[in-house]
Amino acid sequence: MTETTFFEEASALLGPRGLTRDPELVDAWLTDWRGRFKGKACALASPASAEEVSALVKLCAKHDVPIVPQGGNSGMCGGATPDESGTAVLLSLRRMDAIRAIDADAGQAVCEAGVILQKLHEAVEAGGMRFPLTLGGKGSATIGGLISTNAGGTQVLQHGSMRAQVLGLEAVLADGQIFNAMTALKKDNRGFDLKQLLIGSEGTLGIVTAATLRIVPAIGERRVIWAGMDSLETARALLLKCQHGAGHALEGFEVLAQSTLEDVLRHLPGSRGPLAGKHAWHALIELVAEPGEAGKIDQLAEGMMVSSFESGLIEDATIAANESQAEAFWLLRDSIAPAEREKGPAVQHDISVPVERMPAFVAAAVPRIEQEWPGTEAIAFGHLGDGNVHFHVIAPHGIDPSGWYKTDGKAISAQVYEMVTQWDGSISAEHGIGQLKRDELGRLGNPVALDIMRKVKQALDPQGLLNPGKLVPLAQGGATP
Amino acid sequence: MTETTFFEEASALLGPRGLTRDPELVDAWLTDWRGRFKGKACALASPASAEEVSALVKLCAKHDVPIVPQGGNSGMCGGATPDESGTAVLLSLRRMDAIRAIDADAGQAVCEAGVILQKLHEAVEAGGMRFPLTLGGKGSATIGGLISTNAGGTQVLQHGSMRAQVLGLEAVLADGQIFNAMTALKKDNRGFDLKQLLIGSEGTLGIVTAATLRIVPAIGERRVIWAGMDSLETARALLLKCQHGAGHALEGFEVLAQSTLEDVLRHLPGSRGPLAGKHAWHALIELVAEPGEAGKIDQLAEGMMVSSFESGLIEDATIAANESQAEAFWLLRDSIAPAEREKGPAVQHDISVPVERMPAFVAAAVPRIEQEWPGTEAIAFGHLGDGNVHFHVIAPHGIDPSGWYKTDGKAISAQVYEMVTQWDGSISAEHGIGQLKRDELGRLGNPVALDIMRKVKQALDPQGLLNPGKLVPLAQGGATP
Repeated sequence: MTETTFFEEASALLGPRGLTRDPELVDAWLTDWRGRFKGKACALASPASAEEVSALVKLCAKHDVPIVPQGGNSGMCGGATPDESGTAVLLSLRRMDAIRAIDADAGQAVCEAGVILQKLHEAVEAGGMRFPLTLGGKGSATIGGLISTNAGGTQVLQHGSMRAQVLGLEAVLADGQIFNAMTALKKDNRGFDLKQLLIGSEGTLGIVTAATLRIVPAIGERRVIWAGMDSLETARALLLKCQHGAGHALEGFEVLAQSTLEDVLRHLPGSRGPLAGKHAWHALIELVAEPGEAGKIDQLAEGMMVSSFESGLIEDATIAANESQAEAFWLLRDSIAPAEREKGPAVQHDISVPVERMPAFVAAAVPRIEQEWPGTEAIAFGHLGDGNVHFHVIAPHGIDPSGWYKTDGKAISAQVYEMVTQWDGSISAEHGIGQLKRDELGRLGNPVALDIMRKVKQALDPQGLLNPGKLVPLAQGGATP
Repeated sequence: MTETTFFEEASALLGPRGLTRDPELVDAWLTDWRGRFKGKACALASPASAEEVSALVKLCAKHDVPIVPQGGNSGMCGGATPDESGTAVLLSLRRMDAIRAIDADAGQAVCEAGVILQKLHEAVEAGGMRFPLTLGGKGSATIGGLISTNAGGTQVLQHGSMRAQVLGLEAVLADGQIFNAMTALKKDNRGFDLKQLLIGSEGTLGIVTAATLRIVPAIGERRVIWAGMDSLETARALLLKCQHGAGHALEGFEVLAQSTLEDVLRHLPGSRGPLAGKHAWHALIELVAEPGEAGKIDQLAEGMMVSSFESGLIEDATIAANESQAEAFWLLRDSIAPAEREKGPAVQHDISVPVERMPAFVAAAVPRIEQEWPGTEAIAFGHLGDGNVHFHVIAPHGIDPSGWYKTDGKAISAQVYEMVTQWDGSISAEHGIGQLKRDELGRLGNPVALDIMRKVKQALDPQGLLNPGKLVPLAQGGATP
């Protein structure tokens, strides 16, 4: 029987540490981070090298076995969770966790796909440098997963998303070939830049096994500012002022509304708001400087806030007096998601529009949703500097969640995505598509882009075995891509 | 007859300004910039809009007519020159030359493919900003061509190549569909980043018709430094020192050897070297600062040079006293190519290796070439900061050029490309592949990368009508991609 043959051959390839069918070991990885998707797998493979991944993929191709690659299983869209058929192998990259080299002079770190983001941060910092991308799931998220989803975070404004950090890449393709483009060349015009195709492809075109990443000088000084203002439009004006005034020193610009701040303060026992009064909108601004530039950055932060106040741009502002106050400011920002969860069921949308249009979008979208679905509360918060907000709609108080998700929740999401599309925005700014948004991408995506995606997918994975059912929407006729 | 039908239909589509078969008008565009390739075309099409390009491409697909897109015809590798069969339409984008918008706040310029680089510079500068990419051919090169070849230049060190400037893109695909991804979203994770596939694809996957480009604040102050040192290894150490000390202020770091400087001084009547003595290697360094930061940048430039001198890193240095002296320093750098041309026939190689390996590469490659081909002179100069040098080998004095190019010249290039490949470098750092290097890419390229390239080309241009014979090497069996 071919199935028996497959497992025998896979076991022989990977050894006992590399392959298991024990439900106790497998099941823990079959539910996604948010608990929305639960799948099945015929086995959990944990190869130890790109060569083992390659051999396993060749074996899967031979036996027509689908493969679902998984890093830290901290994705937001079910992109690393298999379907319920139980035919797929769950391929964990977590055993491949070596940091191979850190070269401060060259500004490069070389590591395997299974390295956890926080471990990379620590290793790079020990060498006096830093890796300029971070996000909430840093204790779980792996480099391979971050690359496959082109992850963002709170430093994109200055440093870009994961795509901007990848200098070199190694991946195993659908036919088992190893694509090695690990050498970082600042200039290389030998044809199509294939690593760009793999970044953000959510494991549908290849399985990332290693990368050469960009690292930058460590931060010497930072100043965290909390400012209050009358509108999101004003926040955008302040953002422009900061970009012009601070240039490369501006590393973060996050926004939240007064009501959101109040939710956070209720959620965090003993916390207090940074400013004395109430303001319609709040901005959290981070400026950084190299070691020894404390005087310069103080002057910059104070100068910008004073002139913003004097010109009427902001109503109030405060600069964190020390590192622990800076951390406290960031804790308020990072507690928005848990604070909102406390308020009850909600549908969440990770969306972007051109930065300059974001204030108008929020001003239009919030009342529209709240009017069409009475009792809901729509909030927008996050990375204004990237034109990316998290747009959450909280269910009416006391409603039955499971029913609401299936009816109103679903209709609200559809409406939000339609509005974003009309505003030339993206239904997924940073979380990706996975299985959660695939049908919506099929419904609302640019038809020409979808056509190219399907053609590229078909060309590089004709058997359709790499992460099936994720990202690439079904073609009109319904053929599985 | 189908050919007659094609021209009638194309004429009807494009009108008299949009299509000509007059040899006087067509022939001027059938020879490449360097005069190495001469092709033929059945017509010159000059559409006025993406819609016209789309209609023409659909017509070509129907009649199986190949298309060779062309911008300013200033490419270095014959990528915009048709073959000699005369079956192709030469598709000029030069009529599509509108600059649609410049938005300093958003940091964006929107323009059509035929806009000449220098025109864009001027328009952006009039708005108090700048477009951070420039190169020798700026008076001819078009935005479409620069994108299609992922052009580089002298500001890549700080700002990246053309890929880093493209925020949005519009292109016509092989089936005539218009791919519109013009809206600049800082974050967008809706699947494969298809614009990355088109950038640098030399018109083999699609015809770029417009783009949204990144613009940055204008330079207020610049300081141009000329430094002399004992070796290229030392130049690399100085580069690191400048990167650490100047950070974002470092915009250029070019190198040349003493003998190259002497050739330039002989070539430029009345010129003199910036330094009094002789030094094995010279570096041209540009630092920039925002308006009003003259004092700061002076301090930075002087401080770095004094400490470099005191630590023995450099033997001598001078800072251009004013803008005209700064221009004079750059003129020396920009005159290397014409000065070398004066010395006689030469084969030229635009190559890269990892920055940290460049000094060792040059130290190994120069004597090897000069020993194996006695009488030749090998020189390396250019963008050390990008790991990219122009490696020229000048023929022995008095030799017959045409014979030499075909025999020794060819063998020398093959040898250089083999060495670069052994050193994990690129046989084309910035000029692209075109028809000049296609066979060498096929011989020396990563077989897995070539395989993916062919599959993607086949998937997106199954008829093989977009710029045939360029970039994508023939498959093993010789099938035309």
